[in-house]
Amino acid sequence: MRKYFAEFIGTFVLVFIGTGTVTIAKGGTLAIGLAFGLAVTLMAYAVGGVSGGNFNSAVSVAMMINRRLSVKDGLFYIVSQFLGATAASAVLGFFKNALDLPKSVGFGQTDFPKISAGAAFTFEALITFLFVFVILMVTSDKFGNATMAPVAIGLALGFLIIIALNLTGGSLNPARSFGPAIFAGGSALAHYWVYLLAPVVGAAVAAFVGRWMGSED
Amino acid sequence: MRKYFAEFIGTFVLVFIGTGTVTIAKGGTLAIGLAFGLAVTLMAYAVGGVSGGNFNSAVSVAMMINRRLSVKDGLFYIVSQFLGATAASAVLGFFKNALDLPKSVGFGQTDFPKISAGAAFTFEALITFLFVFVILMVTSDKFGNATMAPVAIGLALGFLIIIALNLTGGSLNPARSFGPAIFAGGSALAHYWVYLLAPVVGAAVAAFVGRWMGSED
Amino acid sequence: MRKYFAEFIGTFVLVFIGTGTVTIAKGGTLAIGLAFGLAVTLMAYAVGGVSGGNFNSAVSVAMMINRRLSVKDGLFYIVSQFLGATAASAVLGFFKNALDLPKSVGFGQTDFPKISAGAAFTFEALITFLFVFVILMVTSDKFGNATMAPVAIGLALGFLIIIALNLTGGSLNPARSFGPAIFAGGSALAHYWVYLLAPVVGAAVAAFVGRWMGSED
Amino acid sequence: MRKYFAEFIGTFVLVFIGTGTVTIAKGGTLAIGLAFGLAVTLMAYAVGGVSGGNFNSAVSVAMMINRRLSVKDGLFYIVSQFLGATAASAVLGFFKNALDLPKSVGFGQTDFPKISAGAAFTFEALITFLFVFVILMVTSDKFGNATMAPVAIGLALGFLIIIALNLTGGSLNPARSFGPAIFAGGSALAHYWVYLLAPVVGAAVAAFVGRWMGSED
Repeated sequence: MRKYFAEFIGTFVLVFIGTGTVTIAKGGTLAIGLAFGLAVTLMAYAVGGVSGGNFNSAVSVAMMINRRLSVKDGLFYIVSQFLGATAASAVLGFFKNALDLPKSVGFGQTDFPKISAGAAFTFEALITFLFVFVILMVTSDKFGNATMAPVAIGLALGFLIIIALNLTGGSLNPARSFGPAIFAGGSALAHYWVYLLAPVVGAAVAAFVGRWMGSED
Repeated sequence: MRKYFAEFIGTFVLVFIGTGTVTIAKGGTLAIGLAFGLAVTLMAYAVGGVSGGNFNSAVSVAMMINRRLSVKDGLFYIVSQFLGATAASAVLGFFKNALDLPKSVGFGQTDFPKISAGAAFTFEALITFLFVFVILMVTSDKFGNATMAPVAIGLALGFLIIIALNLTGGSLNPARSFGPAIFAGGSALAHYWVYLLAPVVGAAVAAFVGRWMGSED
Repeated sequence: MRKYFAEFIGTFVLVFIGTGTVTIAKGGTLAIGLAFGLAVTLMAYAVGGVSGGNFNSAVSVAMMINRRLSVKDGLFYIVSQFLGATAASAVLGFFKNALDLPKSVGFGQTDFPKISAGAAFTFEALITFLFVFVILMVTSDKFGNATMAPVAIGLALGFLIIIALNLTGGSLNPARSFGPAIFAGGSALAHYWVYLLAPVVGAAVAAFVGRWMGSED
Repeated sequence: MRKYFAEFIGTFVLVFIGTGTVTIAKGGTLAIGLAFGLAVTLMAYAVGGVSGGNFNSAVSVAMMINRRLSVKDGLFYIVSQFLGATAASAVLGFFKNALDLPKSVGFGQTDFPKISAGAAFTFEALITFLFVFVILMVTSDKFGNATMAPVAIGLALGFLIIIALNLTGGSLNPARSFGPAIFAGGSALAHYWVYLLAPVVGAAVAAFVGRWMGSED
């Protein structure tokens, strides 16, 4: 039970800090990337010892493929992550209303207004592959570094999102995109399938490449 | 005595660097958030071994609830924190005068001109809950990481403040708001009760949730 | 084989994140410097245990000079790095096309439109000397710090690039400049010899100075 | 001899990266503060094991007062630091000329055009006191953290400089101000005595307060 709450609150903080920096703080590119990335860093230090600190359904899929996570726990993790992301978007929506922000501010939802669905899918799969590959290596027994793993993971997420902002918004995480999409609706919801499937494809490839590199030795 | 001085100088540096970045440096959103957050990080490395490195009266309340801090020490910590914050605002006020800054620059005081007191109270309680929960976990014997705890704590404070700037200014700390408020007066002082009570409520909830998660095991 | 892939993917991520922040994200000075530097940090944590984490042909030359890397491995590392950088530029070119960015955006190639070739050569040699000297020391048995070495190395690269942006673009790495140059062509390609040779000169000097300082003790 | 070179190159990098970010990169407030601060962080990781990593003559004075450094070594350290800072300003001057920058760009010299000499002296003494106090504590046997000390020290310098930029430019270091001042001349040179004496006063006070706090236990 505790580990499901760890995934819930970790994903809550990721979406709260990350999309809150987009919508309420109106941060610049660097601030947005670091907000998403370092939210994962700090929550991995806080509750990584309880649940492993996934906060990302694509990561949980990779962990199930590589047998670091049981299928049962993985499914509960994913449910907890979707609940955490949705709760964060609901809370931010409440405070956005309190601020009387114009509707155009949105919820920090992910979308790809400038490129095709195919390009968006390819990009999200590619950056999630890189992200999950980094996670598997820095948390591996053989090559990892437990003290600094959350820093490496957060930097990977942050700087990959910085490049992605102009292309796909930078999700790498089906749960992170779900919360804002159900409140924003419209194109973000219609395009949600990209953010559901592409990260899982990238994560699955990373699971196999990581294993070949020795991440499970 | 040394530990009370540690809380005094830690809170002094937090308010000096944090509100100094707002008023004298006129930093951007990211600079302000990182200034508050990383001031806590660096002072926790410097004097955390002496006092535990609270620098925050809501944190001290949570530590008292979870018996990591005696009531006597907790009360002296809180007094030391209020004195440190007040001293920092006084010193910054002196150098602001030396610069002939217009009175509108203020003291980096916290206030909520755009939202209701109820929304402000709820937001401060929520982000302090998240902040203190992170602190309790990263400093716990079972799940914590002594080497990196100050980094995780500083990042939590910094990025929560970034979101809060536009809503409540981001206090999470009765002592941090007290110093600037008594010099700024007016609305910041009239609204100080929010920054006194809401962080304590959030911290108290975090104490119980943290204990349930195993922070005291 | 694994270690060559480690150099390939590490250099891929360095060029992908670094030049992607220049071209697609249009980041500011600080964001660009941190992107290049912290990409090295995170990949050093991810695959440094596999290959040593060079991601830079000048670094590999220094490691060969100081016998930390065999000549055979060094040559394969360099080939892997050039392939990684080229692949990253190709991938970014694909997504730049998807975005319909104007041709003037370029590939994040390095060039020196404001200064002479001699000044550019001197500057690149100097900053590469400083960078490789830092690497040799922080990874040395006697004076190094394995836990934090990737952070120190990334900060060195990032802040040296920040100064270099206005002079030479800040390469410090023959592989990093090769990928963008072959796609950008023109002046960046004609001036590539500076980015091929100057970092190697700086790295070779660093190898000897580092040895004198005790980096190989 | 090696340790004097360590102080020379460490101070060279501090002034090269710090004042180079001001003059050549024209960085913003956050970039400038982080450049100075994190230059110290990375050089402390690189050569801290050789010399202790002072790179600052006020720090060396405090270390002599608290008997962590012999008077003879301290004097050679200070000479090495002044030479390193001067060399960095000379090198940056050469590349500034190569860029044809207007003379108004300067050398990143420290000065206080908006406040009185007394206020500037007080401010530099105060922030150097805080900085050296942090250094003495994080490097102490009893309360320190050898792994993270360079991070805490760099953050302290960076964020104290951010506040100081608008007041005194933020020196905290007689060597750092000397190099730019002798090339810039004029008011920066005439006011140099403030940057020579105030940091030493602050550092001396920190030596005594640190000892009282247990930094030498």
